[in-house]
Amino acid sequence: MYSGKSRCLKCGHIFEQEDIFEGCPYCKTEDFVSNITPLYELPETDGSRADYERLFGGKTLESYREILPFRRKEKLVSLNEGNTALTELSRLGEELGIELYAKDETRNPTWGHKDRLNAVLVNKALEQKAPGVIYASTGNNGASGAAYAAKAGLPCIVLTVKGVNPTLETFMQAYGACVIGAHSAAERWTILKECVEKYHWYPATNYTIPIVGSNPWAIDGYKVIAHELYQQMKTLPDKIVVPICYGDALFGIMKGFEELKEMGFVDKVPQMLSVEDYGPIARAFSRKSDIIEPVEGWGSVASSICTPYGTYHSLYTVKKSGGSAISLDNNQQLLDAQKDLARKEGLYCESASAAALAGIRKYIASGQIKPGEKVVMLITAAGVKDTKVTASYMGEIPEIDASLESMEKVLKDVYGVKLQ
Amino acid sequence: MYSGKSRCLKCGHIFEQEDIFEGCPYCKTEDFVSNITPLYELPETDGSRADYERLFGGKTLESYREILPFRRKEKLVSLNEGNTALTELSRLGEELGIELYAKDETRNPTWGHKDRLNAVLVNKALEQKAPGVIYASTGNNGASGAAYAAKAGLPCIVLTVKGVNPTLETFMQAYGACVIGAHSAAERWTILKECVEKYHWYPATNYTIPIVGSNPWAIDGYKVIAHELYQQMKTLPDKIVVPICYGDALFGIMKGFEELKEMGFVDKVPQMLSVEDYGPIARAFSRKSDIIEPVEGWGSVASSICTPYGTYHSLYTVKKSGGSAISLDNNQQLLDAQKDLARKEGLYCESASAAALAGIRKYIASGQIKPGEKVVMLITAAGVKDTKVTASYMGEIPEIDASLESMEKVLKDVYGVKLQ
Repeated sequence: MYSGKSRCLKCGHIFEQEDIFEGCPYCKTEDFVSNITPLYELPETDGSRADYERLFGGKTLESYREILPFRRKEKLVSLNEGNTALTELSRLGEELGIELYAKDETRNPTWGHKDRLNAVLVNKALEQKAPGVIYASTGNNGASGAAYAAKAGLPCIVLTVKGVNPTLETFMQAYGACVIGAHSAAERWTILKECVEKYHWYPATNYTIPIVGSNPWAIDGYKVIAHELYQQMKTLPDKIVVPICYGDALFGIMKGFEELKEMGFVDKVPQMLSVEDYGPIARAFSRKSDIIEPVEGWGSVASSICTPYGTYHSLYTVKKSGGSAISLDNNQQLLDAQKDLARKEGLYCESASAAALAGIRKYIASGQIKPGEKVVMLITAAGVKDTKVTASYMGEIPEIDASLESMEKVLKDVYGVKLQ
Repeated sequence: MYSGKSRCLKCGHIFEQEDIFEGCPYCKTEDFVSNITPLYELPETDGSRADYERLFGGKTLESYREILPFRRKEKLVSLNEGNTALTELSRLGEELGIELYAKDETRNPTWGHKDRLNAVLVNKALEQKAPGVIYASTGNNGASGAAYAAKAGLPCIVLTVKGVNPTLETFMQAYGACVIGAHSAAERWTILKECVEKYHWYPATNYTIPIVGSNPWAIDGYKVIAHELYQQMKTLPDKIVVPICYGDALFGIMKGFEELKEMGFVDKVPQMLSVEDYGPIARAFSRKSDIIEPVEGWGSVASSICTPYGTYHSLYTVKKSGGSAISLDNNQQLLDAQKDLARKEGLYCESASAAALAGIRKYIASGQIKPGEKVVMLITAAGVKDTKVTASYMGEIPEIDASLESMEKVLKDVYGVKLQ
């Protein structure tokens, strides 16, 4: 059960306030900030699957109340998020010499992993009697938040930067949120901060530099991914690979496993491996520094994750779980991974999600993922949200006349397929 | 267990062949054709939930083998389709005076209901040792088929008509299918027919006039929706509302319930209510005729269902289940329904899926859905596949300067929201 308290990941300071959105003020410096995380009094268990079912059975958001940060007992608003498929990628696994699975987070209500965060966020906003929820987002998170705010009957503001992805702009607008364009990411954060401080709108996303990450209560929604993996797998994976921006899901999944371990249901926490486009976490990790400096970018197409910034909770997670952090080198790695997931496994994901497979290839090459290991990769969002990037490497669709011969010619010339 | 036989829905002729893709030749006329449907020897049960679990427990495609049309015992290719959420629409239900649920088929691997059909289709194609699978499709079905063919390692041809929806074109291409443009729907069908007859490619979709509907073995994939509803609901719905094009899902869901009834697990089959854009089925139903004549259209935006044609299995389903058939009148009904589902319930669906809610409104107005009834509507595909239609009724996203005042002004002027 939620204790009502939270703790700083870095200095351990305990908070009883529930409006700490800018990280721990006690260990904050000009170039460092750590997020806080809610604390729980976990139930006693005998560690059996039966006891697990007794405590957490039911597969709804309500089922996980013991590990969610709510004080109130009211029925939770939900779009029946989660229960996402775990799909074995046998063809790619064989190619790579590992046992590979995708946790397919595209199977959520808004077809991406943010729904877990926002399900918790809107319920916490209701508990806090906030007048509304507010986001800085150019896509998936804003749309997901708008959907949950709609279901909860809460007003929602999404501060965006126009032109990043028109499909996602309409997607955010569709749910009736107040979508507003700012001139830059930095300007969005200033306005968001003022709106939180002056009007007590409930913030979902980061609005400070150094970057602290998302709302710490909402992040606990990601713990449910660990619970589902525990339910779906007979033996836990060696490694979980997550494409990260500010690493909320990376941290939340580890925290979920840590609590499962504390309750005696599992005996280890899988190693958490992050994949970034540009690598602020990878650099701090390799330098053994807790200071996460912004890095140079290379123009990634993966708009959901291409940030020069990183968060301490990302770094904390890879270190604490005995994992690792790497970054990618170019768009070709992302596009090859997207193509291979679709063509070899029938899973079409956003380019940012494909970063997981691109990262796995690098981790294997560097010996950090070893032959035969069991690896779960998180597919964070649906490819259909991001068709413009995919279209850039697709040819024109050929046209034919009304004859089988015309089709046979095109099949041979364009696709290299011979009918027989 | 699949008997290896099929029966004509109209004349009852029994077939042992497995290549009947153009409907029953025995009762076919110039203006009538009926699809056939596979027959099963259903297991004896005691009608209990426990016995159901014994027979069908597991929630995978394999779990439903007893009611799927396979002779071979090989492991089934699957993307872990199904297990889609059933979400109560309490706000809309209250407005409408009914108990309303959405079966959210957007929670499938390609974010639409066709995955159930294609999961069965590719496995049947493998069993039949077909050289590949072939579709006539402008979107959802072609993309879903391409995904399953990729997972199965089968070549896939999608004959499309270019320009209907560019997002869906890229979506179909992403999985590596041979996507080819024909000049018209009619030309696609001619080529498809020749490819099936000459090269024995396995057809997923209709290619005849009068329209017969999809591959009859593949349609049985939709029966699993009935099984999931049985698992998800304590008492069955009075009515199930399905937006239809050729009505494969409408028929498959009823067949699933009929088999559940034959096995003693349920004591009724819910009434099946179809919703069309233009209404060939609605007209034949109201005229009490089995001849389904093409009707005039009104330029619907719902490209997934806006056809002047209908199938006999649609008509058969509404009649046999004691259901009904209606058509819509204009795009405003679709767009209002899409907007309300997103803004009031947090579910953003394709305009074609929104036809279900638009239809429910008409059914209530005509007294065919009564106050207090329990109604399930099928949400067939994700709204994010169809943002162009939604964008047509969205305003420009307003832009602001870097100040709270600037945001407050826009919130008030554009969205009618006052911060306080």
